[in-house]
Amino acid sequence: MNKELIDDINSLVLNEKVVFVSSANAEGYPNTKAMFNLQRDGLTTHYFSTNLSSKRTQQFMVNSKSCIYFCNQAEFKGLMLIGKMEVMTDRKHREMLWAEGNEIYYPDGIDDTDYVVLKFTAESGNYYYGLSNCTFKIDELVTATA
Amino acid sequence: MNKELIDDINSLVLNEKVVFVSSANAEGYPNTKAMFNLQRDGLTTHYFSTNLSSKRTQQFMVNSKSCIYFCNQAEFKGLMLIGKMEVMTDRKHREMLWAEGNEIYYPDGIDDTDYVVLKFTAESGNYYYGLSNCTFKIDELVTATA
Repeated sequence: MNKELIDDINSLVLNEKVVFVSSANAEGYPNTKAMFNLQRDGLTTHYFSTNLSSKRTQQFMVNSKSCIYFCNQAEFKGLMLIGKMEVMTDRKHREMLWAEGNEIYYPDGIDDTDYVVLKFTAESGNYYYGLSNCTFKIDELVTATA
Repeated sequence: MNKELIDDINSLVLNEKVVFVSSANAEGYPNTKAMFNLQRDGLTTHYFSTNLSSKRTQQFMVNSKSCIYFCNQAEFKGLMLIGKMEVMTDRKHREMLWAEGNEIYYPDGIDDTDYVVLKFTAESGNYYYGLSNCTFKIDELVTATA
């Protein structure tokens, strides 16, 4: 993949406030929900903050298959990453994503038992731009970025 | 479900230009893509125009399980509808969704063999608004709307 395309993908991932996170329910139907685009490690790993009791978290605890989708509607650009979602409950991950004001969602703070971090690790993806699209294994993105 | 909530849902569905359409791939991973919000029959049935050769269409021909997601990011509102996606190739559906300028995507016009209509029929759903969310069977929406 060429540098221009990688830059374009990075810019999309850095600028979008919301990510569309999908899981599979018990019957195998995809389930999608908008979540805040909070933090990431390169293009491979993405972190989300949510409730342990939420439907999506419960689904990921049974089936980690997931996709996350970044979209710039105005420019007809969409990045889909396919991979696995882990539910992290350790203090390190909780601290990493905690932000002032999160008490609205988790009244007991960082140690609120209903607060978890979802960690997504991409395996492959698709980048749609205009009328073109490009399918890739995540290694191709990471190697090109390094 | 109360009338105010139904009105809110209708307004979301009518105003959003883009819908996030999800399928399941052969390995059971959800796959999401933004598509134009073109036409619908109430809240139950939604139509999309796409290519027969596209990955998403090919997935729906094998596995019709789907969800579609409408999102107003500014107001923290999201409607997820879960149901089945059918791939329609008949002339009636093609004509219904055809619009001037579509020749960019389908050079041979309405009868372009690569042009198909995706017909989504909802079975159940979730409506997220602010910090609340409401799960429903599609009959509850339809009955309340009638």
